[in-house]
Amino acid sequence: MAVYTEVSDEALAAFLAEYAIGDLVAFRGIAEGVENSNYALRTGAGDFILTLYEKRVEPADLPWFLGLMEHLAGRGVPCPLPVHGRDGAALRTLCGRKAAITTFLPGVWPRRVDIAHCAPLGEALARLHLAGEGYAPRRENALGPASWAALLARAADDADGVRPGLRAELEAALAAILGAWPQGLPTGHIHADLFPDNVFFLERRISGLIDFYFAATDLLAYDLAVCLNAWCFESDYSFNVTKARALLAAYAAVRPLTAAERAALPVLCQGAALRFALTRLYDWINTPPGALVTRKDPLDYVRRLRFNLAAKDAAAYGI
Amino acid sequence: MAVYTEVSDEALAAFLAEYAIGDLVAFRGIAEGVENSNYALRTGAGDFILTLYEKRVEPADLPWFLGLMEHLAGRGVPCPLPVHGRDGAALRTLCGRKAAITTFLPGVWPRRVDIAHCAPLGEALARLHLAGEGYAPRRENALGPASWAALLARAADDADGVRPGLRAELEAALAAILGAWPQGLPTGHIHADLFPDNVFFLERRISGLIDFYFAATDLLAYDLAVCLNAWCFESDYSFNVTKARALLAAYAAVRPLTAAERAALPVLCQGAALRFALTRLYDWINTPPGALVTRKDPLDYVRRLRFNLAAKDAAAYGI
Repeated sequence: MAVYTEVSDEALAAFLAEYAIGDLVAFRGIAEGVENSNYALRTGAGDFILTLYEKRVEPADLPWFLGLMEHLAGRGVPCPLPVHGRDGAALRTLCGRKAAITTFLPGVWPRRVDIAHCAPLGEALARLHLAGEGYAPRRENALGPASWAALLARAADDADGVRPGLRAELEAALAAILGAWPQGLPTGHIHADLFPDNVFFLERRISGLIDFYFAATDLLAYDLAVCLNAWCFESDYSFNVTKARALLAAYAAVRPLTAAERAALPVLCQGAALRFALTRLYDWINTPPGALVTRKDPLDYVRRLRFNLAAKDAAAYGI
Repeated sequence: MAVYTEVSDEALAAFLAEYAIGDLVAFRGIAEGVENSNYALRTGAGDFILTLYEKRVEPADLPWFLGLMEHLAGRGVPCPLPVHGRDGAALRTLCGRKAAITTFLPGVWPRRVDIAHCAPLGEALARLHLAGEGYAPRRENALGPASWAALLARAADDADGVRPGLRAELEAALAAILGAWPQGLPTGHIHADLFPDNVFFLERRISGLIDFYFAATDLLAYDLAVCLNAWCFESDYSFNVTKARALLAAYAAVRPLTAAERAALPVLCQGAALRFALTRLYDWINTPPGALVTRKDPLDYVRRLRFNLAAKDAAAYGI
């Protein structure tokens, strides 16, 4: 839940004057997304999203993100297309923040994942990965395995206050995962945060993939691991292997997995679960009371981590 | 900032099936309004707002509110028009809450009020008051003068913790205001909460008046007092009499004020300031840390109250 930055009438009018998208018709804050301020913007030319990038996004990374979205949209991925101003720039400044206008995507994100969502998701993820080929700039994954020890160190002293024993559990998991982390798997541009609220569906088909502000150049199969964690666990933390199989099969039909990728699925899923457990733990500890965000329980991802640590091979994921 | 109730895909689909407004195209939470959950809803028939009524709204009042909006919209007031389902009902139940679909209104609410907003506001308020005639059902103002003593009593013990001396200041103001409260002024249906974020403008004209969930049958000039407080103070709490004069003159050009209404302006403005000071004080004391709402400082309205208590007559408001 966001909208951190209020945009004054005058600032908005001056900003829109930089674009050739007609006159302002409507402007409403969107209550979704926790990292940036998002507004639904309607002009004479149609519907758009105006995003103001808040402190979590590194401004130096924004041209890479916007460039990736433009590259993907041009290759048929249903992602927001950055709109260029009269001067050619897609990224400018509004109310002291970097800001961009992108196209509006129809659809609704699934509040409750069911099996019918999983095959379209797998197919869309594989198409995203293939479409990313040819986008030459790279971005290291700032939340990849190289970052996890430091993430844990920042939160370690408070971890046992969240749940006794959590620090030792996470330290043991981290050592095991880093020791087993795969080398030489296919890499490319990954979304890295493809949770249900970033995927819009319309009549059972995917109509939008949004929020590319964690995207990076990393192991392609790691993106699958993020999705397996985010889409295939039930609310009681049981793993739904039917959903996983549907997701993986649909992915592999577009981009076949290598034997090494299949073999690495358990450790990739462990790593993905650890990454979200660690960032949620840090946020849990450091979110001030009264902040306008919903804290996400890090233990949700600790439970996923345990399942993945117990997985012996790809068969645990239905393939 | 709202969206308290998450609506599942299945619940939304079943709800929309009750209406003849086409298929779902998009559905996004709106980060505005603090009382209810609001979603921007797009269907094959266009754009709508879906509102789920949260705990602050008395369900028994909802037919009155929706009926008033329908009455006003039918008489040219640019307010949301409730959409009736196939069964004729505009009010039904979704996710355990009362819920309604209304039409989408274009426009942008002014983040910073300037003088050019005030005359259109005054004119629109007067037209709203005239259009309300003929809507026979009445609703007592649950936050009118009869409620203020009880409101203050609920917050009195904690008032001095917010600012030393606040309890005595509010008790003295309450006694003075109730003792001078006018009798016999023209009554009708009032909005009672027409703050800038409830008024949309498009190209300097008013395109929407929203959020009728404090509306009631009360003194018409009290609505003006609410607006004078909400629109005519600068951020340093100075009173901008030029804005007030523009607002009042434009109102009076459509619905002339009686001599008694003009004479009562100071006490009406005192009462309106006290009402918002009291509800904000209560919310300030009772909003739990971490709640997903921005608390509004009650002292903003204590300062307005002081200005109004010092006003001798309508000349203080520029007329």
